[in-house]
Amino acid sequence: MSIVFHHTPERAKVWGEKFAKARPDMPFYVWPETGPKEDVRYLAAWKTPDDLATLFPNLEVLFSLGAGIDQLNLANVPPGVKIIRMVESSLVEGMIEYVLWAVLSFHRDMFRYARQQREHVWDGSHNRPAKLYRVGLMGMGELGSPVLEKLVSFGYECRGWSRSRREVPGVKSFAGAGELDAFLAETDILVCLVPLTDATRGILNRSLFEKLPKGACLINCGRGGHLVQDDLIPALDNGQLSQAVLDVATPEPLPPEHPFWDHPRIFLTPHIASAAQSDTAAEAVLANLRRYEAGELMTGVIDTGRGY
Amino acid sequence: MSIVFHHTPERAKVWGEKFAKARPDMPFYVWPETGPKEDVRYLAAWKTPDDLATLFPNLEVLFSLGAGIDQLNLANVPPGVKIIRMVESSLVEGMIEYVLWAVLSFHRDMFRYARQQREHVWDGSHNRPAKLYRVGLMGMGELGSPVLEKLVSFGYECRGWSRSRREVPGVKSFAGAGELDAFLAETDILVCLVPLTDATRGILNRSLFEKLPKGACLINCGRGGHLVQDDLIPALDNGQLSQAVLDVATPEPLPPEHPFWDHPRIFLTPHIASAAQSDTAAEAVLANLRRYEAGELMTGVIDTGRGY
Repeated sequence: MSIVFHHTPERAKVWGEKFAKARPDMPFYVWPETGPKEDVRYLAAWKTPDDLATLFPNLEVLFSLGAGIDQLNLANVPPGVKIIRMVESSLVEGMIEYVLWAVLSFHRDMFRYARQQREHVWDGSHNRPAKLYRVGLMGMGELGSPVLEKLVSFGYECRGWSRSRREVPGVKSFAGAGELDAFLAETDILVCLVPLTDATRGILNRSLFEKLPKGACLINCGRGGHLVQDDLIPALDNGQLSQAVLDVATPEPLPPEHPFWDHPRIFLTPHIASAAQSDTAAEAVLANLRRYEAGELMTGVIDTGRGY
Repeated sequence: MSIVFHHTPERAKVWGEKFAKARPDMPFYVWPETGPKEDVRYLAAWKTPDDLATLFPNLEVLFSLGAGIDQLNLANVPPGVKIIRMVESSLVEGMIEYVLWAVLSFHRDMFRYARQQREHVWDGSHNRPAKLYRVGLMGMGELGSPVLEKLVSFGYECRGWSRSRREVPGVKSFAGAGELDAFLAETDILVCLVPLTDATRGILNRSLFEKLPKGACLINCGRGGHLVQDDLIPALDNGQLSQAVLDVATPEPLPPEHPFWDHPRIFLTPHIASAAQSDTAAEAVLANLRRYEAGELMTGVIDTGRGY
């Protein structure tokens, strides 16, 4: 009964040490090493090998190394194999930091001051209090909810939207397709943190932008596939949106000739908002393995029907 | 018994409305209007008129409209006139926002990503957790202490330094000149929030930079006079400092030909970190007036010997 780890060598090293210490009984292999293939019950991977069904005939659990599972080829995962996404503290902390940074940047005019610096212009405006900014976050899950809690602590007027209703103290809650328009109508700063599924692919499009108040700001730290990229620049150029902060793109890396790079109203980061730290990620999987072996419910079980 | 307000017309309007409602008994004049000069007991001002002693012979209290009083010409204030600095919630909130933005920008490599975007480079690094960053804040007063509390809530390893010892939960405290070097030696991100006095003028200089760990980041949201400007660029160019975020400069506005504008490791903002909001500032002064009239201690009384 063994586990195979499939990601970068640096991460494998940290995982290997954690497993050697916590689970000396369980052989730990780093891909392409696998040991006897029929012994492999667990796979921890960012992306999976192509021929998963034939490769590991006795695979029971696939642990995604990402908060989402859209990077996995689900068609390639044999039925009956449980899929678990990563839920661990570093992922949450990283996302809180990124979203707060982006919201503060917009609220406190930092993108404008960056432009002014290039022009040698010293021109400050009175700061408006946080309570005058309505931040709307799509996706009130295990990342979105703590992000909303931190936004509330800064005094922002917060709204959250999810597929099914979620409650976060101090946050006005919207649920389902029927309440999306009402949510958008009162959102000055839109944060996208929904999982990428067939239902949310391309959700950030011209029609959605037009439902926001004019001059709204878009922060996409979900996946590149959430955004219809051809709709973004026209919305920025006609003033419907006044700023976009994008941590994700299609494809990644974004090609050097892509128009996003030079647009004055787009701030791009290379998919760094949040990543699992190897030590806490390994601990999260070790904890889930203990639960699984004890017949308990694991954290982060994917409903393959919904895709998250 | 009247009050004179001496600042911009926009602010005067808000103050006038607040005073008309709360203190219909007290005539409120907007400079250059003063009413009978011998009736003027209170002056609320950013900078004071030059001939204060002869102008208002019965002046009792001068309310500064800034968190500091360095913009006032103290030599011009008659002895016996109490000087009160501004203590109100918007000033604190603005400073929390600014410092958190600057610390997050440095911690999460946002200045690097801004440079990479100009070069069309998609290259992300693993995020390091906040606990690996030691943030050292100089000036644990009514602005600095709540800023430290917020930094602690993000998981930063926090240190504070003040003239006399102050305690903030979760923050390692340093006090006085004797402990400054020890404070600097373990500070990766230095935040300057001390009052500007003869003792702190030029405190941010080459000798101080050399006591920081190599590659530290400087955030100055105190006053331009804290920084020896000629020492900054050499420290950035030789790598002793890796980034500076400056909200203040000498002089302000910074002249267009100043070398700070184009330095790739300096981010400049035009003195916008924190400003009193007229409504909450007027309320703070009204509350202090009630205390004064009742013979109670006012909030923000300046010790003119120490200068803050």
